[in-house]
Formats: sequence, structure tokens, C-alpha cells
Amino acid sequence: MSSLKEINPISTNTENSRFHPLDQLTGDEIMTVAEIVRKGVPNLNIVFNTITLKEPKKELMMSYLGWDTTKPRITKIEREALVVALEKPSMKCYEALVSLDNGQLKRFEHIPDVQPILTMDEMFEVEELVAKDPRVQAECRELGIEDMSCVFSDPWAIARHVTYKGRSKRMMQALMYMRTCEDDNQYAHPLDFVPIIDLGLMKVVDIERIKPRDSKFTRPTIPLEKHNFLPEFVGEENFRKDIKPIIVQQPEGVSFKVKGTEIDWQKWNMKISMNYREGLVIHNVSYQDGAEKRPLFYRISLSEMVVPYADPFTPHNRKHAFDVGEYGLGLCTNTLTLGCDCLGSIYYFDATFNDHNGKPFHVPNAICLHEEDAGILFKHTDYRNGRAHAVRSRRLVISQIVTVANYDYGLYYYFYQDGSFQYEVKATGELNTHVLAEDETPGPYGVMVAPQINAQYHQHFFTMRIDPMVDGANNSICKVDTQRVPHATGHPNNMYGNGFYSESTILKDTAEGQQTANYETARFWKIINENRIHPYSKGPVGWKIVSNHHTPLFAQDDSVVGQRAGFAKKALWVTPYNENQIFAGGFYCNQSDGDDNVEHWVKDVQSIQNKDIVLWYTFGVTHLPRVEDFPVMPVEMCGFSMKPCNFFMANPGIDVPPTNKGINHSKLASKEKENKAACCTKL
Amino acid sequence: MSSLKEINPISTNTENSRFHPLDQLTGDEIMTVAEIVRKGVPNLNIVFNTITLKEPKKELMMSYLGWDTTKPRITKIEREALVVALEKPSMKCYEALVSLDNGQLKRFEHIPDVQPILTMDEMFEVEELVAKDPRVQAECRELGIEDMSCVFSDPWAIARHVTYKGRSKRMMQALMYMRTCEDDNQYAHPLDFVPIIDLGLMKVVDIERIKPRDSKFTRPTIPLEKHNFLPEFVGEENFRKDIKPIIVQQPEGVSFKVKGTEIDWQKWNMKISMNYREGLVIHNVSYQDGAEKRPLFYRISLSEMVVPYADPFTPHNRKHAFDVGEYGLGLCTNTLTLGCDCLGSIYYFDATFNDHNGKPFHVPNAICLHEEDAGILFKHTDYRNGRAHAVRSRRLVISQIVTVANYDYGLYYYFYQDGSFQYEVKATGELNTHVLAEDETPGPYGVMVAPQINAQYHQHFFTMRIDPMVDGANNSICKVDTQRVPHATGHPNNMYGNGFYSESTILKDTAEGQQTANYETARFWKIINENRIHPYSKGPVGWKIVSNHHTPLFAQDDSVVGQRAGFAKKALWVTPYNENQIFAGGFYCNQSDGDDNVEHWVKDVQSIQNKDIVLWYTFGVTHLPRVEDFPVMPVEMCGFSMKPCNFFMANPGIDVPPTNKGINHSKLASKEKENKAACCTKL
Repeated sequence: MSSLKEINPISTNTENSRFHPLDQLTGDEIMTVAEIVRKGVPNLNIVFNTITLKEPKKELMMSYLGWDTTKPRITKIEREALVVALEKPSMKCYEALVSLDNGQLKRFEHIPDVQPILTMDEMFEVEELVAKDPRVQAECRELGIEDMSCVFSDPWAIARHVTYKGRSKRMMQALMYMRTCEDDNQYAHPLDFVPIIDLGLMKVVDIERIKPRDSKFTRPTIPLEKHNFLPEFVGEENFRKDIKPIIVQQPEGVSFKVKGTEIDWQKWNMKISMNYREGLVIHNVSYQDGAEKRPLFYRISLSEMVVPYADPFTPHNRKHAFDVGEYGLGLCTNTLTLGCDCLGSIYYFDATFNDHNGKPFHVPNAICLHEEDAGILFKHTDYRNGRAHAVRSRRLVISQIVTVANYDYGLYYYFYQDGSFQYEVKATGELNTHVLAEDETPGPYGVMVAPQINAQYHQHFFTMRIDPMVDGANNSICKVDTQRVPHATGHPNNMYGNGFYSESTILKDTAEGQQTANYETARFWKIINENRIHPYSKGPVGWKIVSNHHTPLFAQDDSVVGQRAGFAKKALWVTPYNENQIFAGGFYCNQSDGDDNVEHWVKDVQSIQNKDIVLWYTFGVTHLPRVEDFPVMPVEMCGFSMKPCNFFMANPGIDVPPTNKGINHSKLASKEKENKAACCTKL
Repeated sequence: MSSLKEINPISTNTENSRFHPLDQLTGDEIMTVAEIVRKGVPNLNIVFNTITLKEPKKELMMSYLGWDTTKPRITKIEREALVVALEKPSMKCYEALVSLDNGQLKRFEHIPDVQPILTMDEMFEVEELVAKDPRVQAECRELGIEDMSCVFSDPWAIARHVTYKGRSKRMMQALMYMRTCEDDNQYAHPLDFVPIIDLGLMKVVDIERIKPRDSKFTRPTIPLEKHNFLPEFVGEENFRKDIKPIIVQQPEGVSFKVKGTEIDWQKWNMKISMNYREGLVIHNVSYQDGAEKRPLFYRISLSEMVVPYADPFTPHNRKHAFDVGEYGLGLCTNTLTLGCDCLGSIYYFDATFNDHNGKPFHVPNAICLHEEDAGILFKHTDYRNGRAHAVRSRRLVISQIVTVANYDYGLYYYFYQDGSFQYEVKATGELNTHVLAEDETPGPYGVMVAPQINAQYHQHFFTMRIDPMVDGANNSICKVDTQRVPHATGHPNNMYGNGFYSESTILKDTAEGQQTANYETARFWKIINENRIHPYSKGPVGWKIVSNHHTPLFAQDDSVVGQRAGFAKKALWVTPYNENQIFAGGFYCNQSDGDDNVEHWVKDVQSIQNKDIVLWYTFGVTHLPRVEDFPVMPVEMCGFSMKPCNFFMANPGIDVPPTNKGINHSKLASKEKENKAACCTKL
């Protein structure tokens, strides 16, 4: 193994001052970093797994951003890159730290017993490998497939395999499908075997047959009926003809301002970035409240996901995809298309990641920024004289769409004019399907969405990492429960029996910081700053965090997924800030055994009151698929929101001016129909 | 009392054939009906409470609409009006049934011991009465008010009063406020007393002082600080200047077709109406599935609401407004404004109700019908070649906005292209406020949103009446619970511990039909038709009903509100269809004691399986106000949705064509900024 002593600085072209410390690496920087590492360890045969910005320490950034005024403001922060590399063919993992300021390899070390994230390069390599494997070909022949160009595999993380467990080897499993023609929907033709791949050996080391549950069934045939949604299959002649266009325009331009990756909109200010792992990250969110610019959130991201499947039998019981930690929301991000993914006046940001060779790969239009009308923001009518005042709500949308093999997720951050924030996930794409023998049924673990096609029940958990700075670095979390008053109807203190009250409890330590949802008490949580008391409410200023999409993890607590995805067991965990704790399922999530995740971090009881804290907040859906989710799934939404809760002195949106048809050109549809020609020429 | 024998038919101008049987009464019809009733009972001194369409019997309508093909199709149905009148000054209640076909008063009878809905006329009369009352004036003088034109009252239903209970008298209570100038927000200046009004006597019969909780406090002064949101108070010079217009246009027209009150849109067909009580009602919903027009819902409406407050002390413990049954969502509906309430290409429907004199009052633009872009409907990208197919979602929105004294509710019915349906409530307007003595606190029942202003905690429950006809009149309800498999991790049937399954239970009778939400099992319900089995799923075709907004009623079960609003105790009740059961809180909800509501109807255990059934489905929010909800509340949303669940043969939206920037003129915001002039001339 190389040591730091052997490493010589390489000169770089990077001018630190060009960059904000949170700017992601450019393509040039990625190549520079790769070169520095390669030159630093010339005798190692490495491929680059990850080359990414090493985000500066929060304590430096808080000063740089101007929030920490206790010491002289820091104006320059060293720009560093974090590198994860794999040695071939041992698949040993190395971490490197590179300074882009002076071209120095500052750290290079072997990280034992881990496997880093899977990469697109590996997805492609594995699919090719599988198709060429003689045993796979034999399986396919037995199923009647001669032409291997019809065979496709979705390479998945191995999770935990009975035989190939642990992390000494880099393993994958491939879910197999065929296509009956080009661009055919493969999920309508699942195959009944799963090759196991050793990426060190680059070899299929095993093939598992998926057995029908009952031995009375013979080997399932491949369902050959097509189920497609692409236009050439649906047939453009079959498209609906009666949808008239909706045109959304901003002829005077948009209301947001972009400077680099900093965004100013309607008193909100924030910075965005996109990394290989969490995808879109929102940094340094503040709100201009009169003369005061008030800090709110240091960093918000989707830290981890897990999608556990219901079927308890092999190989289905290995299916619990960590879409962030195993595949990466950055690596899987789509190039967005104007007028299709995004409607209206759109500002795009690109993203850049690295490939195995340390070369950049560029994703144009990776992030969409735009505004949307969001219905009414508030309205009140005085019924006495009919005087109405209604104001329309505008929201700023920052979004990306990712494709993780079969599933696609639209990920939307929304900011509103009343000071509220919302995060929404739109799950779409393809159900994971499994082939049944003719007359076999899915049992209570799935639904047949077409003959022989079992769409298995599953859950989606989304764990947000929220690093708050509500009016300062030190915050607390308050649990709010609503309860009946403890007096029977007729009691002097509850004469009519209507009494209920809310109870607020500040969570003191990481034990109390483990919170479950409670529908029975309409429970929610608040991020509060105990150092600032609201003059009206007389309590600490705060932000309320709410989700209507909590769902329990139905796997056993000590299940494989329960061990690996402990974060999904609770709606909320709160930890003291720790710069090494960014990913709820651990940095090295792939093939993890669950020894490095939020459930472990909280075991040491630490104070979380009036401290620099981090929230790990989970919402999700239990998805029992419907026939209507096939052959492509209409979006299923879930998410959460945060709202100022006794933070401002009033509704912060009362200065939003009302609109009218003179401003937004709204028209009567009935009149439009009558005067169609006139209306169109006016346009 | 008059009897039917005394009544002579009066000729009418109504031509039955002009009307669909579900069309509401016209203004002329209202006047005709009033005349018929007056002439029928010339010796009674009556005021008209309600003059409304008597909806035809469902058995007739099912034939008329073509769904019941077991007998010859009915093509003509007698048009009838239902009248509720009050005799003055006894305030005895009478019901009448009038045939509009032959001008006959078919029924006229005294309904003992009920009080019908409150009317706008009464709201105005009571406010005037209160201002003129010497004892009220004395109270105001003691508070320092000399000019009674500054004093305003929100007349509320009395609910149940310790002294004035029962229904023999028609009573109201008035919540008192002042204004410091014209159009000032009265909720910033609440007064500390509640006049009790007898509407028969037209007299203030009592005045209740709201005592501070602790006797150490002296009488609260009136908080005089202004808290306003109307433009003249905020000051147009203080309005945000940086919101650029968003223009939504449909230059080729809208995609829906309207014929009378029948709407055709994207394979959906339905009819709408608006009555005094439920407001907007959706009738006869069907979906064109290939060659088959499939019936889905006979009738959907917001049947009842209740808004119970938390504070257990008098007079707050009487506050639990039934906004449907006591005030009427039709009577309280707003005239909507183009470009303000409604954005884009809008089709409006008017509504007509009656006043006390039997004259019509007309609400122009009472219902807004329009289309909205609703983000992506579905998307999938093949990550191998990057081929993406994304389709945008369009929704049809049918909406109204009501003002019930302080609160305003936007009520939105949405229909989507993937066959799903959604109902959304946007609660906005003014918090109900109560005055505190200086230094008094709201206790655990409210929050101080400004000095001395207590915004009391409360809940909003919305109970939908859903009369389904999923592929036919006879339907069943199926409860779906998700559970862990009952085997520990390591068991042969749960080796990895991941196993979970869903369990479906068909509800057999009205006892089983009483259902609570269960977050622990991700519970939802399905409306199924056991007579039609889906060829893929092998189970009955069905529709899933889901809300993420169930909240428990925090009042005691035997509380006054618990008795009167029994419907709010459960998420779902299922009853056999009964034409007299339209309102979950009873037809005569005002001053009710709770002897006629859904909780009572289900006491007789009746079968609900494979029958003509009705669902009473409740969702809501527990609202702990924030300072940010004052002086006007940003919309707070809740609702529910229904989705086809193994009903269609595939995603019903796969024939929606993709859009592109050529169709919807989407633009790059960055480019737009550069070429601003060019862009604007092009428009």
C-alpha cells in the first residue's frame, strides 16, 4: 500500500477563487484529481469509483457563509476532492483526499472490508458479462431463447447472500428479462433465474433458479405477450386526440435570480449542488425577514432510500434496494427535456460525475429550476359585503428525475411564499416483476398484473438528512402530541367533553431522539431555537416538520433489511452533528452488514438539546401494486413539509400582491369557444 | 296546520323536458314553488328556509341514466321541489313537497322538534339585532366603545346550550368583534362576551361574559393593535415587486365539453349540481374503457363537516361548527373571479338559491371548471440507451370556494387521465380568535398569535358521502391491511425476516362497516364489485380509497360534539343505500341532539355486502394554529383520493400522447433573459 510520504504534489490549474466552496468538481478538476491519484500510487491498478468534492467542514463554512460571527470571517477554504478507488482484480477499496489548491494527495489509504457504491460502468459490464456466460446461455436455451441479444439483465446490489456474504468480494446479482423486439418492455418478460456475479473475477459464479412456491408447478415458461407504453407500441393512431395544449409562459421573465448555483427567490436564498450520491442537495437556506436575513437550514438532502420487497422466499428476500447508497441519485440522474419533463420557463443546471477511468461524464440539464402557480395562497371574503381578497401562491421548484433500473423517481424541492418548504417524491417507471408458472398465483405477496407477471408488494422509504440552523447553529427538537383532556364529560373542567390540548416535549438525548409516528396523537415535531423566544407565542421560535406519509417497516426488526436499513424503523432520529455522518445507511452502504448507520450512531446516548443537531426523517409508502401500475406506473406521491411555526411575526405572505386577468391573461373558456378565431389572433 | 286536502294545484310554466332530472331549480322555479306553497297554506305566516330540488329516487334515476337495464328505460321523471319553511313567530318547522310538473303541493307537514339550517338572512338580521340591543350596547360601553357601527358579530349556531337547549326555540349565539376602521380585520379585536339570541322572539335573551381562566385577571381590554392583510393596510408600496407573471393559456380551447351541467373530459363523464347544503355535487361518474362505458359513482358530495374547538370552558365548549348542516356550502359559496381565484381558461357555472321571501338569489361564477397541468403522469427511461418516455398529467378541476363566517374553504374535485380521482380541501381565511386579559395565556388550548389574541386549537372533519356504482349498483367494501408474516427471522418461511403480506377482508354488515384508520397496517379500503372478477388479478374489480389525512376526534365519545357529530369518530362507515340518508349529521343538523346521524343509522345491523351501499368517509386535520396563520391563514390542505385498483386491464393513461416544447412553448429561462425583447415581441 502506498503511503503519504511517497506522494509528490502535482500542479493544478484550479483557481480556488473561481469556486464557491460548495461548488461540485468540474470535469477538468475530476481529470486533475484522477491524475494526481494515479501519479501518487503508480503501482496500483485502480479504477475510479468516486471522485467528488469533499465538502468543507461545517465550522469553516458557518464562518465563510457569515453565520458564525464569533470569530473573524473565513474567506478562503481549501478545495479538496474525495476519491474512492478499487484495486483490480482484488477489489480492495482505497480512499484518497486530494487538495485542488496545491495538487497534493493528502491521504491515500486502504479501507478494509467495505464495498463502495455500484457504478454505471459496472452495470454495463455486468450485463455484458452475463449475456456471454455459457451457463446463462444454457438457461436461456432451456427457456427457448437462442438469440442472446434479446436477453437483458438489471444488475442489482447483492444485499446479503447466504453463500457470498460479507464484503471481501464485490458481488452483484442480475435480474433477468427478455425483449421480443427492440425497445420492448422487458418487465413483461421476466426470466426465472438470477446469476450471481463476482466483479473481482468478472465472472458469473452461480445461477439461482427461482422455484415456484409449490413443487406441483413445472418450470415457468416466459410470458411472451407484449405490454408496452412507448408510442410505437401504443400506436400514435391510438393516442387521445382531445387534449388541447396548455401553454405556460413568463413573458416578462422569471422571478428568480441565479448566480452560479446560488438562487434568490421571494426572500428565500439558497445554494444547490448535485453529487453522485444524494443527487440534488440544498445548502444554506435562509429567509429575508424584514431587515434580518434569518438562517434556516444548513443542508437538506435525500440521504438514503430503501425499497424492501415482501416475498420471504429466495431470491426475493434479498431485494431491498438502497437507491442512494448502492446506486447513487446523481449517477442515475436523467437529462431533462424542455416541454416534457419541465413545463414553462425553465432554468437548467448540468452535473458532472466521473467514470471508471477518472474521466468526467457530463449530464446536461440534470436539475430543473422553475416557478409554478400553486393555486390560492390565502383568501378571505367578508360575507357581509362580499369583499374578497385572494392571492395566488407561487412556488419555486428545484427538481431532478432519476432512473434506478426499473424504477424512476421525480424528486422535487418546493419553496413557497408563505415561508413553507415541501419535498415531494413522484415514484414512477416500472414495477419489479417476477415470472409465475401458468396457474401459479403470487400468494399474499404480490398481484398478477398480467398473465404470469407477478408485481411484488414492496415499500419505499426515503430518509432525509436535515441539518438545521434555525436562527443559529444550536437547535432542539420538540415533539408535539395532542391528547384528550383527562376528564370525563361532565367534569367541571370538561363539562361538554370537548376538551383537548397539545403537549410539547423537548427531546433531550439521542435515546429520546428516536421517534415513531403517532396518528393517535396527531404527532408532529418542531425544530426550535430555545435561545430565541417569540414575543407573541412566548415559546421558542420554530419550524414544524410534517409528513402524512409515514409507514411502518414491515420487515422484522432483526431482519437483514432491518439490520442494514435501521433508519427506516423510525420516523425520526436526531443526532449531534458529526461530519462523518451524512448517509443514514452508512458511507459504505453496498454489501453493508449494518454496523455503520444511524441506528448504531445513536447507541451512545448523547445530548441533542440546544446543540448543533441533525435530523434523519423518514417517510414512504407501502406499495401494493395494481394492474393499473403496469406496463408503466402512474406517479405515486409522497413527501414531507416544513413550515414556520411561531417563527415570523405574522403570515409572511401578506405582502404578496393579488393577481388579476389583466396580469395573467386568464380567459373565459365559454367565450373563448365562441370567439375562437378572435381569441387566437389576439394571442 | 294545513293538510293536503286544502291544496289546489297551481299551473306552472315549467317544461319538464327542458331539464335534466338532476338540474337544480331555476330562479323562476323557486318563485313558482314559493307561490304554490303560499297559496297552499294562506293562513300560515311563513318564511322560506329552503327551496331546493327534491332529487329523484335513485331507482328511477338508474333507469333514466341507462345503468339499470332490467326494466324499460324511464325517460321522464316528475320534477319536485323540497321546501322547508318556518312559521313566524313560533319558528315551527314545516316541510313541503311541490310538483313542478303539475304545480301541486303534494305534501305539507309540520316537523316537530327540529330547527332547519341557518340562512344568510338570519345572519344579517341577528347582527343588526345584536347591535341594537341595549345590554349589548352597555357591554360595549363598558369596554370603551360608544359607536356601535364599529361592532360586528359572527352569528353562530348555538350547538347545545345549558339553558337554551333542545329544539323548541330557534337560537343563535354571536361571537363579538370590533373594527377600528372600515374593512379592518375584526378578528384582531375580539370582545369578551357572547349574546344569546332567540330568533322567534328576535331578541337577545342572554349575554355571557367570557371569564379569564384565573380570577386574578380583571376584565380583558380590547386589543386595539391592527392586524390586517387587505392591500390598503399592507400598503401597495410594500408589496413584493419581484413576482413576474405566469400566464396559462389554451389558445386552441379547452379539452372538456359541457352540455348543460354534464361534463365530458378524457373518457370521464359526469354531471354536476350545486345545492344550498352540500354545495357542489358530482353525479353519475363513468369512464369510457374502450367500447365499454363503465359506471363508477352515482353521487359524491361533502355531506357534513364539523369543526370542534379544544377549550373545555364555556362558551368555547359550544364551538363545533357544522359548516354543511348549519350554514350550507351552497349558501356560503363565493362568486369566483377570473385570474384571481381561477387561473387559465375557465368555464363558470352559476348557482341559484332562495331567500326568506321565496325569491331567488343568484350566485354568478359559483363553480369553476378548468384544466391544469399536473406534472408528469408517468416516466420511464431505459438507462441503457437513455431513451426516455415522459407524459404530462392533465387534471380536470371542478371547484368552489365557501366562506363560513371567519373560515374560507376551497373545495376541489380533480379527475386525472390515469383514472384517478382526488378531492382536496384548502382551508384558509381567518382563525377564530378569543380575547385574553393582559398577561393571561391561552393554556394548552391555543396559541397567542398577537398580544391578547388567542387562536384556539381545533379540528376540521370533512365527511364525504360516496354512493358508488362500480360496474353496477351492487358493491362491497374490502378492508386491506398489511402485516408482518408471523414468523421470526430465520424461520424457513421467513429466512431473511423481510416477509410481509396483505390481508383483504370483505365487510359484511354495518357493524363491520365501522372502520378506523390504522397507520400500523397501512390500512386502506376498496370498493369492489364481487360480480366481476378481473382476469389478471383474479379478484373482484375495485377502486381503492385512500386518505393520508385521518385524524382522531379528540373530544370524548360521549361529549356533546361526539353525540352530535358521531360521523367524525370513524374514518369510514358503510350503510345500505337509503334515500333519506344524505347528511352524515342528519337532515336537521342545526341544534340537533344527535339522534339522526350515521352513528345511529348503523345501530340496526344490516348487510352491506354485494348491495347498493353508501360510504361515509371522513378525513381532516388537527389544527394547532401558528402565528403565521394570522391575520390570514395560508391554505392548509387535506383530502382523499380514489384510484382504480385492478379495475382496468392496464394503466389507463398509456394512450396519453407525450408533449414537447413545440406544443406547449416551454422556453429556457436563461435564454429568455438574454433575448428578452425578442421573446416578448414573439408573444
